[in-house]
Amino acid sequence: MHDIIPNEGIIREAHERIRPYLHRTPIFTNHYLDQLTGCHLFFKCENFQKVGAFKARGGLNTVLQLTPDELTRGVATHSSGNHAQGLALAAKTAQARAYIVMPSSAPSIKKAAVRDYGAEIIECEPTLEAREATLGEVVQKTGATVVHPYNDHRVIAGQATAAKEFLEDVDAELDYLLTPVGGGGLLSGTALASHYFPGGPIPKVIGCEPEGADDAWQSFHTGKLVPQLHPDTIADGLRTSVGEKPFKIIQKYVTDILLADDMEIVAAMRLVWERMKIIIEPSCAVPLAALLRHKERFAGKNVGIILTGGNVDLAQLPFQ
Amino acid sequence: MHDIIPNEGIIREAHERIRPYLHRTPIFTNHYLDQLTGCHLFFKCENFQKVGAFKARGGLNTVLQLTPDELTRGVATHSSGNHAQGLALAAKTAQARAYIVMPSSAPSIKKAAVRDYGAEIIECEPTLEAREATLGEVVQKTGATVVHPYNDHRVIAGQATAAKEFLEDVDAELDYLLTPVGGGGLLSGTALASHYFPGGPIPKVIGCEPEGADDAWQSFHTGKLVPQLHPDTIADGLRTSVGEKPFKIIQKYVTDILLADDMEIVAAMRLVWERMKIIIEPSCAVPLAALLRHKERFAGKNVGIILTGGNVDLAQLPFQ
Repeated sequence: MHDIIPNEGIIREAHERIRPYLHRTPIFTNHYLDQLTGCHLFFKCENFQKVGAFKARGGLNTVLQLTPDELTRGVATHSSGNHAQGLALAAKTAQARAYIVMPSSAPSIKKAAVRDYGAEIIECEPTLEAREATLGEVVQKTGATVVHPYNDHRVIAGQATAAKEFLEDVDAELDYLLTPVGGGGLLSGTALASHYFPGGPIPKVIGCEPEGADDAWQSFHTGKLVPQLHPDTIADGLRTSVGEKPFKIIQKYVTDILLADDMEIVAAMRLVWERMKIIIEPSCAVPLAALLRHKERFAGKNVGIILTGGNVDLAQLPFQ
Repeated sequence: MHDIIPNEGIIREAHERIRPYLHRTPIFTNHYLDQLTGCHLFFKCENFQKVGAFKARGGLNTVLQLTPDELTRGVATHSSGNHAQGLALAAKTAQARAYIVMPSSAPSIKKAAVRDYGAEIIECEPTLEAREATLGEVVQKTGATVVHPYNDHRVIAGQATAAKEFLEDVDAELDYLLTPVGGGGLLSGTALASHYFPGGPIPKVIGCEPEGADDAWQSFHTGKLVPQLHPDTIADGLRTSVGEKPFKIIQKYVTDILLADDMEIVAAMRLVWERMKIIIEPSCAVPLAALLRHKERFAGKNVGIILTGGNVDLAQLPFQ
């Protein structure tokens, strides 16, 4: 079942399944940013979502479909980011254990947040090899089900519900819908939701990526999955490689991938903080940064942006 | 007319007058903060208001009542804070000139914001004497009407509309309504709005003040207006002395004044940033800080807090 690319029915079911446990996040507009960009911007504020990011959607949709036997053994993942909190919340909701492998270098505030949801943290060296090896040991010991942050159609269907809500609630016909792209779970889900629940003409869906981790851009333009070997960007949520499953959906349903560099990302983040008075993390600022680089393309259009998350370390901000 | 303490009709008229030019700001709740405080918190987000603070309310209500002749000569004030922007916006709305005396030490971002609204900035030395002398010169030269930031019943009636909206929109019966107190415009207006538009039992209105600028606390408890001589607090919007007109209203309609120190204020500010993902300025964090100091008093109650503003210098944050 979960090897089918999510269709209308699957996304609708995902939404019914997870809706009781999540916030219906609001849509904000901003006059100043409209003037600055020359288009009409609509922001779906998933930074106000539980765990401070959209990630709880995919985690919940996956965990709530596990069998009682699987739930007894728990769920596991390795993550230093929002997926860790999303899965911890999902497991708590389903009354299952969660084992989260985190690099010892992860900020203590992130560890505390995961622990607050009742998850067990297993620390390891801060390398991908150590993370995967440690996760393997955890699974061998506990029999826990590994929940991948994006290369899973249940996760993709969960992330799709953000765009579904956006299109149901927004007070305009969106010409474009922009999201960041890291592993591709949100971008692929957004493209599917736009296809199946447009509520009008289908908006063009565009992924936005940091120049320092441009594997989606390369993959999209060469038609071949190019892994991200040496990411170098402030957008810590987007350093990962696009997954195979999201990529197939992206190739079919996404219009384009646009880039922004770290200076543009920090400038866009600052604009949102100063003008909208809301906190977004660097990864979340990439769509506005890319839009500002390609203003002419969006002139006069209605553009939706999913603000993906607001988890930042306030003691380590990039503003000067 | 504007020497009458604002009553039901005056506040209602103020609201009709300014409503078309302002946002109806949303009310936020937060599960984590409810757990932490042991009460049910409702936050009216005036940090999302135009100019990033409630101050535009009082400025607009005053400027929109000026005569055509007065409007021709313009309006003036001295301010390095949100009143400067509020008055600049009000003047722009009424197509009048605004002359804003600002200390040369004011952050350039604040000057830029005032200039963006089309106001003229007159710089002076950063002392109260220099500010008042410079304002005097400006008035002599231009004939502009001085709009005081709080010691004016029209301003108080304008600030009262924030609480009026709050009480109209909130999905609960508030037991308490908390605001910061600096000059007392918002606190006195909130007390009047609660008296005239409670929408149920009248909520107790409490002013919250930094320990380093506790003139309202002293004045309230001695019954005599005590000026603030040497304020020392991070809450830059609350360093001023309570005005005579607000104080008369506060004495009659306000239940109590509570204090918080700067460490508590920064901790409360950080809680709101991290947990609610919204940006508030230090002055705006004082009610939550005071509530945390006096948890037992509010246990199990419905408490409304007006989040007054979100104008901070991102390059100068108090987080470590």
